[in-house]
Amino acid sequence: MSDQDHIFMQAAMEEAKKAGANGEVPIGAVLVADGQIVARSGNATILNSDPTAHAEINVIRARCKEVGTQRIPDHDLYVTLEPCAMCAAAIAFARIRRLVFAASDPKGGGVLHGGKFFEQPTCHHKVDVAHGNLSEESGAILKEFFAAKR
Amino acid sequence: MSDQDHIFMQAAMEEAKKAGANGEVPIGAVLVADGQIVARSGNATILNSDPTAHAEINVIRARCKEVGTQRIPDHDLYVTLEPCAMCAAAIAFARIRRLVFAASDPKGGGVLHGGKFFEQPTCHHKVDVAHGNLSEESGAILKEFFAAKR
Repeated sequence: MSDQDHIFMQAAMEEAKKAGANGEVPIGAVLVADGQIVARSGNATILNSDPTAHAEINVIRARCKEVGTQRIPDHDLYVTLEPCAMCAAAIAFARIRRLVFAASDPKGGGVLHGGKFFEQPTCHHKVDVAHGNLSEESGAILKEFFAAKR
Repeated sequence: MSDQDHIFMQAAMEEAKKAGANGEVPIGAVLVADGQIVARSGNATILNSDPTAHAEINVIRARCKEVGTQRIPDHDLYVTLEPCAMCAAAIAFARIRRLVFAASDPKGGGVLHGGKFFEQPTCHHKVDVAHGNLSEESGAILKEFFAAKR
């Protein structure tokens, strides 16, 4: 995990906070190409009435639309929580090069938990995965959000 | 599998054929509520420059947007091929009641194969699953498509 990773994860964390302020589950993501952030989003499932509008899916769709292709190799994705099975598969379909996530998610994660998508023979793209950066801050934001809900 | 199931799967097959005619992988889906088709789509990942634009995701997004919610219980989804991990998770997030698929997909499926999403403790919604209806026709369309590609 480099200093640059930390900067990009902080940008993802800002998106998570914005999402939380909108009543969405506070998870944020940024997509990086050539050392620049090219897409940023938080969860927007309520705002968009779209169960697939997770932060990761939002940035992948936005960037793919912008460049006019369904595959964006040479892009790295930073997200504040371990991606679910849906997002892990979408990351592979988009041919994302590297995935960095902050907190792990035993309840809903699909990378280290559940079906561990990237480890399955049904996954046809190798993604470089790193995690742990800013995991405590990410976890704290999520805990606070769900505590306030109850 | 009822006569009604057969009719709805035939409608999904029509969407698969339309997708194939557009150069997309020939997979189709319909969403059914109260015995009526409320959304229909084929794969559109190339047309939309969107790696997440699988037939299942397209109908879920369209219907959720139409009714203004991210959850559509009392909806049944018919699709011509076993959903991948991405679509299986989206189906659970949308709270789809029943999933009927035609052909199974050992290479990319996420229901009977790979991480078997619905069987994981990270899946928090029980979906009633049936399969096999029109599986030969669905498999034949896909085989023909990929043979023509080579």
